[in-house]
Amino acid sequence: MGRIVNLFTANGYYSQLHGNYLFYEVGKRAAAFAAAHPKAELIRMGIGDVTRPLVPAVVEALHKAVDDMSHAETFHGYGPDFGYEFLRQAILNRDYTSRGVSLELDEIFVSDGAKCDVGNIQEIFSSDTIVAVTDPVYPVYVDTNVMSGRGGAFSESKGGYEKIVYMSGSEENGFVADLPREHVDVMYLCFPNNPTGVTLTKEQLKAYVDYARNNGTLILYDSAYESYISDPSLPHSIYEVEGAKECAIEFRSMSKTAGFTGTRCAYTVVPKALVCKDSFGNEVRLRDLWARRVSTKFNGVAYITQRGAEAAYSKVGNEEIMEVVAYYMENARIIREGLENAGYKVFGGVNAPYIWLKVPHGDSWKFYDELLSQYNIIGTPGEGFGAAGEGFFRMTAFATRESTIKAMERIKKGGV
Amino acid sequence: MGRIVNLFTANGYYSQLHGNYLFYEVGKRAAAFAAAHPKAELIRMGIGDVTRPLVPAVVEALHKAVDDMSHAETFHGYGPDFGYEFLRQAILNRDYTSRGVSLELDEIFVSDGAKCDVGNIQEIFSSDTIVAVTDPVYPVYVDTNVMSGRGGAFSESKGGYEKIVYMSGSEENGFVADLPREHVDVMYLCFPNNPTGVTLTKEQLKAYVDYARNNGTLILYDSAYESYISDPSLPHSIYEVEGAKECAIEFRSMSKTAGFTGTRCAYTVVPKALVCKDSFGNEVRLRDLWARRVSTKFNGVAYITQRGAEAAYSKVGNEEIMEVVAYYMENARIIREGLENAGYKVFGGVNAPYIWLKVPHGDSWKFYDELLSQYNIIGTPGEGFGAAGEGFFRMTAFATRESTIKAMERIKKGGV
Repeated sequence: MGRIVNLFTANGYYSQLHGNYLFYEVGKRAAAFAAAHPKAELIRMGIGDVTRPLVPAVVEALHKAVDDMSHAETFHGYGPDFGYEFLRQAILNRDYTSRGVSLELDEIFVSDGAKCDVGNIQEIFSSDTIVAVTDPVYPVYVDTNVMSGRGGAFSESKGGYEKIVYMSGSEENGFVADLPREHVDVMYLCFPNNPTGVTLTKEQLKAYVDYARNNGTLILYDSAYESYISDPSLPHSIYEVEGAKECAIEFRSMSKTAGFTGTRCAYTVVPKALVCKDSFGNEVRLRDLWARRVSTKFNGVAYITQRGAEAAYSKVGNEEIMEVVAYYMENARIIREGLENAGYKVFGGVNAPYIWLKVPHGDSWKFYDELLSQYNIIGTPGEGFGAAGEGFFRMTAFATRESTIKAMERIKKGGV
Repeated sequence: MGRIVNLFTANGYYSQLHGNYLFYEVGKRAAAFAAAHPKAELIRMGIGDVTRPLVPAVVEALHKAVDDMSHAETFHGYGPDFGYEFLRQAILNRDYTSRGVSLELDEIFVSDGAKCDVGNIQEIFSSDTIVAVTDPVYPVYVDTNVMSGRGGAFSESKGGYEKIVYMSGSEENGFVADLPREHVDVMYLCFPNNPTGVTLTKEQLKAYVDYARNNGTLILYDSAYESYISDPSLPHSIYEVEGAKECAIEFRSMSKTAGFTGTRCAYTVVPKALVCKDSFGNEVRLRDLWARRVSTKFNGVAYITQRGAEAAYSKVGNEEIMEVVAYYMENARIIREGLENAGYKVFGGVNAPYIWLKVPHGDSWKFYDELLSQYNIIGTPGEGFGAAGEGFFRMTAFATRESTIKAMERIKKGGV
């Protein structure tokens, strides 16, 4: 058979993506190094992946749920599209009601990952939406908009995509980005921040909300790391700021909170008060569009997983997972102090599991290679998070205690 | 605080959707009936949801995987974006190599559901893609294209969306739709068919593949029900037809095969031989675009789930799940014969878990209401699957044996 000529046409916007997905590239380089140096003991502080096992309360609930699935009387087929009520109620109680935020159950959507939701949310916006992101930034916010045509071509001189508005963080503003001067429709924010580990006070968060309300902008608020906040004065949810329900969607995840990176559970809050026009001029509630998106393109999270997640919200489960969080935050302290003692300037790592260090010579991919070859430590180059990330480098607190201590010892003594 | 004016704009194409998502509407009406008739014993043959528990081999593997997650040494964080190799290898061996189809591991993408993949796949096509579907049709194919602007307005006179090409099934053609006369870029096919239960011979499937190759059309082949094929002469995969790798993507699911509707695991095959131009004129492999979509917007399926799925592919696990399939197919036989004995004309139900019956008076929503009120049986009106589905009605074989027998007894005696 000869080669056929396919006449269907692929989405060309994918070709506008600049380079590989960051963590794919980081992993690929590390794998190549490992293959060339099979005896090297690599310490992984690159991808923000947890290493502690699931806590006992969650394990017990998972086993019980597996047993439920093994008997016809307690078997569960398709669950509710938006998540079981037992889990949504637990989320509502612990994450919102307890902090003085009122929400309704059908404003909470359980999913298999905040990355998925943060990536999919742009589907409910019009194609000409003007998107603003902080710089440095979690690449998914940008890449998913580029893939749907909202990014435009990558401009080397701008160090970013033509149509994206970048709010630059820097040493000077402590990586709390200044507000945009031009009109933007949608603004992605992530606090505690990935990659810088910076957090916002309630006043700082209020400044963003006020901006959004005054300019008719929607905030997409990623608070996947809120459980790492130890300072009681800091807000965990954007809805702790008055008026945010009219201008913000919030994303949360069990990945870093309960060690669910390999178990997959998260949720998104879309308040009914979020009202706007659609591209045909109809007045719509974003909550209804998201509900339609979820029920049409998703079939819910596994029953077993949701039972495990529910257990993480129980009193015992919550205590257990907060012990794990404390374990990682002790790692963060060790890294922060280890790097400071070695002469590095460091951000984050106090209310967040990420440490953001200033690269002395300014070239973050070169620093990645140096750290890998000299210390056998894998981190993430700041440049991978955006132009303003160049000159900086991210390390995560999710390794084991032993590896974390060993990594800082290597840095202290100047080699493996 | 006064009401703010939000200036961001929602995706207007959602407003073009005609009515609710079908199964939402079916469930809503059934729930309303149940609320009004609390003593009625409803028999659910509407949504295609399984009722048998997970098989022992899967349950054992799930428990073992939960234990793995409870120890640091065997804990799994983020898995490979495209699925663990142990599962992809099992899929390759049993579903393809054993049937004479050669594929490479990195052409197989494990996901949390065929509905998700079938819904998301349209993202990698250009926005002006001309989409063809059979009619009647699984609504996700149509709705997801409408939501991204490829459907156009709903036309009452056409009984469908303006820009969608419908290939009509009918009693006359045995619900094997005729090929389109105009050019289409992408064609969704589902065999064994949902909702009609009709299957294709290899010659019939070859006719579709030949059409695609001759016209440069892409086939999106949903074979979620392939394990229900008992006739050994029928193809399970479109790749059993020569040349299909250059013109077809295939979707598979564990939902109906292994009772995973509430456990969530599926996979999609995108062969590297699928090459086309993108909307900017670049030559691209759809496999690479899909890989990018998956790694940017998805974080893989839970380790626990993938271990459970792997067990369903083991020798013992496969025997156990095929016993469950046989159970449902015995239900299908009971329904088919029960309906025929009651005087209905019936399609499907031989190599598929769906029975498609002709509604005597022709009004399928009226029949839904009659079946619900007179027999307390929930089915799905054919009209919900498209204009050509009007006059027909879908019943599923996934209820328990007892309920299935009881349903047919009610129909036989003319009431509850």
